[in-house]
Formats: sequence, C-alpha cells, structure tokens
Amino acid sequence: MTQLLSGQPLAAQMRRALLDDIAHWQALGHQPSVAAILVEGDAASACYARAKQRAAAKLGISFELVRLPADTSEQTLIRTIEDFNRDADVHAIMLELPLPGHMSTERVVESIAPEKDVDGLVAANRMANLTGARGLYPATPTACIRLVKHYGHTLSGKHAALIGFGKTVGMPLFHQLIRENATVTVCHAGTPDLRPHLAAADFAFVAVGKAGLITPDMVHPNLVIVDAGINETADHGVIGDVSPHVMGHVAALSPTPGGVGPVTTMQLFSNVMEAMNLQVNPSRAAQPVLTTVM
Amino acid sequence: MTQLLSGQPLAAQMRRALLDDIAHWQALGHQPSVAAILVEGDAASACYARAKQRAAAKLGISFELVRLPADTSEQTLIRTIEDFNRDADVHAIMLELPLPGHMSTERVVESIAPEKDVDGLVAANRMANLTGARGLYPATPTACIRLVKHYGHTLSGKHAALIGFGKTVGMPLFHQLIRENATVTVCHAGTPDLRPHLAAADFAFVAVGKAGLITPDMVHPNLVIVDAGINETADHGVIGDVSPHVMGHVAALSPTPGGVGPVTTMQLFSNVMEAMNLQVNPSRAAQPVLTTVM
Repeated sequence: MTQLLSGQPLAAQMRRALLDDIAHWQALGHQPSVAAILVEGDAASACYARAKQRAAAKLGISFELVRLPADTSEQTLIRTIEDFNRDADVHAIMLELPLPGHMSTERVVESIAPEKDVDGLVAANRMANLTGARGLYPATPTACIRLVKHYGHTLSGKHAALIGFGKTVGMPLFHQLIRENATVTVCHAGTPDLRPHLAAADFAFVAVGKAGLITPDMVHPNLVIVDAGINETADHGVIGDVSPHVMGHVAALSPTPGGVGPVTTMQLFSNVMEAMNLQVNPSRAAQPVLTTVM
Repeated sequence: MTQLLSGQPLAAQMRRALLDDIAHWQALGHQPSVAAILVEGDAASACYARAKQRAAAKLGISFELVRLPADTSEQTLIRTIEDFNRDADVHAIMLELPLPGHMSTERVVESIAPEKDVDGLVAANRMANLTGARGLYPATPTACIRLVKHYGHTLSGKHAALIGFGKTVGMPLFHQLIRENATVTVCHAGTPDLRPHLAAADFAFVAVGKAGLITPDMVHPNLVIVDAGINETADHGVIGDVSPHVMGHVAALSPTPGGVGPVTTMQLFSNVMEAMNLQVNPSRAAQPVLTTVM
C-alpha cells in the first residue's frame, strides 16, 4: 500500500496561512504586489506565468505580468528589472526563464534586487541557501521538504538519494536536505546506474526532467519518493520523472501533477511574504539558522 | 597490498612548477608576496603560520607574518587587512583561524579582497567554488583531488563517500567531487552509521578531525581513502582521521602526515600564483569551467 503524498492538503493549509498574512499586510497599508517579466518565445513559460497570475488573483496579491517581445535587448530587460527594484510598491520580481539566447541569463538575473528575488536565483540568495543564512530560497526544494514532513516523515538521520543536481532544484535541495540532517547521495548525469543508490536509500528526491526515469524495478517497498520532475506530454499535460507504475512498489510517492506543484505555488507566494518582511519590516524577518555540521 | 598515496612526489612536482612560475613573475618585475595575519592565542595556528613562512622562504616567496595581540579589536584587524588589500605589492592575504571569540569571523573574513583570498574563504570565492567559476578555491580540497589523480585514480563515474561536511574542507570538496563527475554520498555528524556508506563507496574522503574515526572493520579491499583529517597527538605530532591499522585492508590510503598535507602546502602557494594572475595580469587567469549536471 503506497501512501500518496498529495500536495493539496498542505497547499490548502499554506493558503490559509498566506491569506492571514496578506490581510495583516493590507491592514498595515501594504498591498502585496508581484511583477512578473516574460520575454516572449517560450510557450511553457507563458503558461506558467499565467498560472501564477491566476493563483495570485485568488490570494488577493497584485500581479503585474509584463510581456516583452522576443527581440528585447538585454539592456532594456535589465532596465525594466531595475525600475521594479526601485519601486517600493513592488515586493517581488519573478523573471520567467529561459531567456532568449541573445542575452546573458546570469547578468539579467543578477540585476534583480536580492530582497525581491522570490525565486532565489541571485548569487546572494543562492549563498544564503548554501549556508542557511537569512534570504529567499527557491520554492521547489522547500516545497519538497515541506511535503514529506507534512506526511509525518522524518529526514534527520535518514539516507536520501537526490537524483538530479541542477541549479534550480537539485543543488539548493541538496543543501536543505543536509540542514535537515539527512545523509545525502547526489546522483547526476554522470552516475552510471541509479539502482544501487535507490536500493540503499530511505528517501528519493527526483528532479531531472526525464519522464519515466524511475521504474518499478529500481525501487523498494520502504522507499519514500518525492517527484519534482516536470515533463510535458504530447497532449499538453504534465507528468513527472517517476513512472506511475511505481505506485504500489514503494512506501510513499508524490503524484505529478498534484504533488510538489501545488505546494511550490504556495511556497512561492510565501516567499513574497518573506520578501515583504525583508523590505518593509526587516526586524520581523527570520534570523539566520546556522547549522553546525561535522 | 595497499597503495600508499604519499604526497611527496606530487608536492615535489608542484614545487618545480611553482619555482618556474615564481621566476617568471620575478623576471617581469613582480616579487610574489604574502601577508599572513596571526592574532595571538592559538598555539596550533602559530605553528602552522611558521610552517608556511618556512615553505615560502624555500620557494623564494616574500612572506610577512603580522602578529597581533589576543585583545586586538575587530576594527583594528579589519583595518590591517584593508591596508594589505590596497597594497599592490602584497598578492595574498592569509588570515590564521580561529580568531578570538570577541570578534566576528565572518565580518573579518569578508574584509579580505577576493583576489587576494588564497584560502578561498570569502563568499565570492566560496560561490566560485560552488559553480566552477573563476576564483580562488581552498587548498585542501583541491589537494585531495590532485592526490588521487596523481596516482592514476579516476573519479568520474565512481562513487565517493565524503565523511565530514565542514565549511573549510568537506563542503568545498563536495562541489569539486561533483565537478569531477563522481556520485557523492555526504556523511556528517548526523549520519548514524558510516559503515554502509563506506561499504558502497569506491572512494572515501575523510575530513572530520577525529583521530581513529575510520577503523579496519569499516573498510573494504577496493576502497581508496584520502585522509584530510588533522589531529594533534599528546606528543605534538599529527595523525589523521583514519586509523593506521586500516593499512592492508584497503586498495589505497593517504598517510598522515605525508599525504594530503604536503600537497596542500604547494596548492596554497599555487593559489598565490593564481592570485597574481587575477591581480597583475587578469587575461592570463583561468577561464570559468562550467560543468553541466543532470
């Protein structure tokens, strides 16, 4: 019997906390406000930006979606970001990636003010995530950890296999798992065989972007799997990295869609609240959490 | 039959390359020069600083050891560092750690100019080590990897257990191992039992600072162990984290002393050369090496 790690109950709980927070800020005269910037050309990004816009509307968060033509210059894009950096009424900047090839993603990303960088992309926030210091952490890794904890699983002292070490999910998730006191095996494109690592693990966090990567023959009945992979199907649906046939062969599995995704969306807007703390009322912000490791 | 991963042959080879580099700089009118700052109070630090001073003298590198009293204020220490930052004739700043408890190590460390930070301590260099970008990486992790490669071992596609995830050795070594394309299991104080992780690994990199941590019953005949642990013995000698009795039970083992240590010393002075590249002649500096991971 596999436990289904549905994201909906946790997302609903986070939504309630968010609504309280938003009401609190509004009562203080601060309307939470997001600027999302989309450089045209990537259909999936456009779709994702609209989904965030709908979610923001339901929460009562202002959400301005700025669409720039595909041939926008890097300079123009950076100027747009810098305008939002200076605008005290905008608390969060979401830059939709990937950007067109004619500009440097790194230069553009680094132009976002760290305290408005709710995707945790800029170097200062990546560094904070590495050390556990105060900052804005990327939403998906945080969502993965919140999801397993919500279902009562303990990471401390356990062995987690992390499959995929990309910049946006795997790498920040690694550092968060270490701070949860898990022993972590990092598998990546250079890992010749995932099987022995999955066989030895209590948890598997999968974030590769390769549909059907994890199959029933690779897992065991005590394994808890969190699937953070997102892959588009031919009919514009979404599936994860874990084959649905794994269901029944593991202790727990997050579905895709409906697992990490809804929690990530709420975590992203929780980051908007934290960004407001950092900007409007720094003394309310979280204090650094420095973990001593061996 | 255990292969002894002695550091001496590699250190000798690095020394020859260094002497060539130093002569090259001197011919260009630049005398390589290090400023080391020691706040009195830690006997081991004082001893280590003097050892570096002797090594520098043998190489023909100028080495000024500044000793400040134990009650020096943070402000005075930072001013001393800033003076060296501005001094174009000083290419490298070595700050001996630990600092006395009355000052913030982080604030003091961050006052070192990144291009003179040959210990790779400041955030900019830690970030560079994380991403593989140009910068100064800490010497010990680099030495560990150079040592196994020197003896013909390949890390790519292999499984490495990293025992210890401290800020100065384990954490930067982790990122370097990933860039070597190894699958890495990170064990730390929260790992309940090291045995299964060592049993599954091809390589073990040990950097905890606990004498006798790794014993013969924990290893296997195909394991290559690099011991980066440094522990003082009662008679002021140095031993590693791996019990000497492990010899004969593994494929290869670095001795302590005489393993990672001599390579680390040469790597530290190689970092001085790289610091000079960054300061005097940036176009000669290494280009970023960005590795794509899954």
